[in-house]
Amino acid sequence: MKVDESTLSFLRDVAHKLRIDSIYATEASKSGHPTSCASMAEIMSVLFFHTMKYSLAEPRDPSSDRFILSKGHAAPILYAAWAEAGLFPVSELKNLRKIDSDLEGHPTPRLNFIDVGTGSLGQGLSVAAGMAYVGKYFDKASYRTYCLIGDGESAEGSIWEALHFASYYKLDNLCVIFDINRLGQSEPTSLQHQMEVYRKRLDAFGFNAVVVDGHDVEHLVKAFHEASQVKGKPTALIAKTFKGKDFPNIEDKEEWHGKALGSSSAEVLKHLEGLIRNKSAVNIQPDKNLVADAPKVDISNIKLSSPPAYKNGELVATRLAYGIGLAKLAASNSRVIALDGDTKNSTFSDKLKKAYPERYIECFIAEQNLVGVAIGAACRNRTVPFVSTFAAFFSRAFDQIRMGAISQTNVNFVGSHCGVSIGEDGPSQMALEDIAMFRSIPGATVFYPSDAVSAERAIELAANTKGVCFVRTSRPNTPILYDANEPFLIGQGKIVKQSANDQILLIGAGVTLHEAVTAAEELAKSGIAARVIDPFTVKPIDVNLIVTNAKKVGGKIITIEDHYPEGGLGEAVLSAVATHRDIVVKKLAVQAVPRSGPPTVLLDMFGISAKCIVNAAKEFLKQ
Amino acid sequence: MKVDESTLSFLRDVAHKLRIDSIYATEASKSGHPTSCASMAEIMSVLFFHTMKYSLAEPRDPSSDRFILSKGHAAPILYAAWAEAGLFPVSELKNLRKIDSDLEGHPTPRLNFIDVGTGSLGQGLSVAAGMAYVGKYFDKASYRTYCLIGDGESAEGSIWEALHFASYYKLDNLCVIFDINRLGQSEPTSLQHQMEVYRKRLDAFGFNAVVVDGHDVEHLVKAFHEASQVKGKPTALIAKTFKGKDFPNIEDKEEWHGKALGSSSAEVLKHLEGLIRNKSAVNIQPDKNLVADAPKVDISNIKLSSPPAYKNGELVATRLAYGIGLAKLAASNSRVIALDGDTKNSTFSDKLKKAYPERYIECFIAEQNLVGVAIGAACRNRTVPFVSTFAAFFSRAFDQIRMGAISQTNVNFVGSHCGVSIGEDGPSQMALEDIAMFRSIPGATVFYPSDAVSAERAIELAANTKGVCFVRTSRPNTPILYDANEPFLIGQGKIVKQSANDQILLIGAGVTLHEAVTAAEELAKSGIAARVIDPFTVKPIDVNLIVTNAKKVGGKIITIEDHYPEGGLGEAVLSAVATHRDIVVKKLAVQAVPRSGPPTVLLDMFGISAKCIVNAAKEFLKQ
Repeated sequence: MKVDESTLSFLRDVAHKLRIDSIYATEASKSGHPTSCASMAEIMSVLFFHTMKYSLAEPRDPSSDRFILSKGHAAPILYAAWAEAGLFPVSELKNLRKIDSDLEGHPTPRLNFIDVGTGSLGQGLSVAAGMAYVGKYFDKASYRTYCLIGDGESAEGSIWEALHFASYYKLDNLCVIFDINRLGQSEPTSLQHQMEVYRKRLDAFGFNAVVVDGHDVEHLVKAFHEASQVKGKPTALIAKTFKGKDFPNIEDKEEWHGKALGSSSAEVLKHLEGLIRNKSAVNIQPDKNLVADAPKVDISNIKLSSPPAYKNGELVATRLAYGIGLAKLAASNSRVIALDGDTKNSTFSDKLKKAYPERYIECFIAEQNLVGVAIGAACRNRTVPFVSTFAAFFSRAFDQIRMGAISQTNVNFVGSHCGVSIGEDGPSQMALEDIAMFRSIPGATVFYPSDAVSAERAIELAANTKGVCFVRTSRPNTPILYDANEPFLIGQGKIVKQSANDQILLIGAGVTLHEAVTAAEELAKSGIAARVIDPFTVKPIDVNLIVTNAKKVGGKIITIEDHYPEGGLGEAVLSAVATHRDIVVKKLAVQAVPRSGPPTVLLDMFGISAKCIVNAAKEFLKQ
Repeated sequence: MKVDESTLSFLRDVAHKLRIDSIYATEASKSGHPTSCASMAEIMSVLFFHTMKYSLAEPRDPSSDRFILSKGHAAPILYAAWAEAGLFPVSELKNLRKIDSDLEGHPTPRLNFIDVGTGSLGQGLSVAAGMAYVGKYFDKASYRTYCLIGDGESAEGSIWEALHFASYYKLDNLCVIFDINRLGQSEPTSLQHQMEVYRKRLDAFGFNAVVVDGHDVEHLVKAFHEASQVKGKPTALIAKTFKGKDFPNIEDKEEWHGKALGSSSAEVLKHLEGLIRNKSAVNIQPDKNLVADAPKVDISNIKLSSPPAYKNGELVATRLAYGIGLAKLAASNSRVIALDGDTKNSTFSDKLKKAYPERYIECFIAEQNLVGVAIGAACRNRTVPFVSTFAAFFSRAFDQIRMGAISQTNVNFVGSHCGVSIGEDGPSQMALEDIAMFRSIPGATVFYPSDAVSAERAIELAANTKGVCFVRTSRPNTPILYDANEPFLIGQGKIVKQSANDQILLIGAGVTLHEAVTAAEELAKSGIAARVIDPFTVKPIDVNLIVTNAKKVGGKIITIEDHYPEGGLGEAVLSAVATHRDIVVKKLAVQAVPRSGPPTVLLDMFGISAKCIVNAAKEFLKQ
């Protein structure tokens, strides 16, 4: 590809303008990362002013090229690129990090040109890989995905999970740029400028791996073009750069991470101004080559293709109901997809794979990337992803899920094998902190269905609910509680057992709801009437139902959960009744690291069996 | 290295015995992973009956070689190896997975020959690397560390973080064995038997990478010997193996993951018995070559070398106090070490590095490995590790921390930059779920110091406290509250403001404690007396102090936390008062994803400033 000198000169000028903009913005905010911006100025110039096709009219146009800034702390130069391209006035950059501006310290989708929040390092590539997977296999469209990664964050294992995923699935529509600027926050990176080590690693991971001079716009233009011609494998451009490039006395020096230039800024700005050949305004048209070939997609109002169909008295694990329901959702909408980390025959996501093999993405044993790919796949409302693994292993991706909330993602998480009720596999496989984790995610909905009917309804609701959704499923078979057409709503629990003379309220979910029902039957033999509530969702929890019924039974609640005592069902109930005098709560939960053994023995040993509930209720009623 | 045929024949026989033992054990438990054991039988035979030096008298002898089974689901063959070596009767293997046996489904340190729990995949190598680092740089002893990794789990990014760490630090005392048995749980692994791809990747990651026939004991004996001779880099043996090796009709077949052989077992056992040449009893002496060159270490009773020294009225961030205190602890005990992920100039762990550079381990931006290395370093009480990064980024290692509890680790975690009070960097950098996470860890101690004096005492207590400890530190400077000699104890809070006529109890920590004090002063102007409590530890929380004082002020508590509403201080307080009638709690917490802005503005915007407390108190008192 031959590029004329005037274009190259223009791209060089733009790079310097972006550096200048980054300094102005960080001087205004008195904080930020101007030197981290400077190392990638030529890369941004070439991408945004030459290579990429995108829309200024509609920055999230489904057919436009995607750009993910994995090193989110370089936000100012990303904002500057969009501003210089014409999306908003360059003068707005001075509002960086201000309370009333969406130009935050790290990018978030509060801005209409950002797909996902970044800033916790090493996460961007999984998201980009998810987008590229959708582009290649679902949208079958010509848009390309670019992801810029810092050298510091390339130490994150999640990057290597994503690289492996991208080459395994031959994502030749993905181009990764490593900004190898040599310096981390507190010292040089471990590999500094060992470009050949990076190249060997990326080559071994199945990439078209090319070392480039990250400050040479001609080299970059050609490299991006060549990347677009490579078929069957993704490309990694390994760009040798310098932190603080073209900042006199700062370039390539330590101690300049994450700070405004302050008293040095005037000199640096003067130097940069002097490097610009043509100061006249930029007018580019990134839209002009946009090919509108991404299909229209409707992900609204997704339904189970048929209602739950179980016999009364049948014993069905909620994890199995998840698989059955998932296949039914997929039958009703072609954009319902599933992802799993080599546990599909345990979580039952294989039900979708069997019905619609092309809509299942095997992510192998790499949970961080699994979650990141799902977040990427959900961007721009292209798909409705359901991600499953053992609930315990979502803890591996807590940071990705946390960032998912900042990214306003709509991913649905389904975790099986919760609690001691999984039995013999032992504590490493038991999720006992997953409710605490997902409850802490802002805006999340946490479903904890107790039978197969409500499990199917939970995933139907999840498919149509914005924000992070989590459905906790159980390993053991449990009885059907509800009719096929029983309506379920988020934040609405069910009374599963009651009488006029109830003296105590039992609240359980999953296996412990069934233990509570058994306990209530047992208590009845001793003349104690107990009411039992199924909360259905732990977040939001049905405050009104709980408070009303607690008061009706005299104010005593026992919560029972197959979870550690902190952050789970018990504390959700406590928060629900926090400001109500005369309601008291006794929490039954797993108090210590469990062990291998039969599920029923473990329920008893760790204090959450029907027998334990009976004893606790009798004791509590004496107080 | 020349090995005589009788030794080789013996090692082959042992491998088959280990296969047989694994089948007997999983038949008795009717569950488990015999095929995953079979692929590694020769590796285990050679390691435990030829290569490794270890003690049967004292399995955790500090001078013995270490072995970490990263693929913990192959536990039966690990138990079989120790039993066949003579540690306990082989007949005990039939108690696998029973409730009254410590031979659990996945290994845990309840067994005296296990250093850490494994079973959540991809974590073993970081632990092994931590052990090897200690062996090479702190113990300077001759013991070697072996880590066996499954091919499925080698997709985990944490493995690649650990590989990079091990080669960067030239851990030539570490030998990693990849058991490439081709099959995962639900389908073949992504790389199947592409041995050359594994070799290229491991070579690129700086390892002496050698492909071996994992079922050829002669090949393995030589390879382990050669690995021990390689200086300056760790070795990876990439063993081509077959899942279910030597199980007729099962070997190398799908659908055989994680299940007992059942009706196939008789035929398989007969076949395996037939492969054994010499059925006579084994008598090995792994101790005979043990070189007792690991130094004696005392990590008890670690003290600050001098008491906190701050002036009354001085403004000091608790994160800075952490660094100051850490250096003082290190002055008093040479086994106090620090690890960080390139944030040492923000967390202030660099104070230790400056004082004792050899005791600081830079782990770069790879938090899962950071935590795993610390867990490894803490094993066998060799060191007292303090691990620091931004508190938000510990979410990256939640699974490792969870497994740390199962591993009975004593690692101390120190997380800085909590909450909205960090300001302009925005939500990706703000820890708002870290208390929920660490509270959910069984046996954990969660410190939340509110001034520099208590911060120093918190880390002094943490150094001497078993189990996971977490210290949450804050970014902003806050006033000194306590005298240098004020005593602090776990589970004991402090009343920082009180009068005889208090009407409401305010509980805050960190920045919100100071907001609470300001609010109390403000409320006093309206004639409302408020009592203020500093909990010091959120887990365990001072139940008695809170209940007693809540009752004294009339039963109204307001909690204020720079954290999301779930699982944090507020719910800890709710749990503390759960069974007390007439105590009600109003929780002030961060209710939505925050944004960039000045700390004081954010405290106000997200409802946890002094002004918000004043309003909430006035409102609450009306109810």
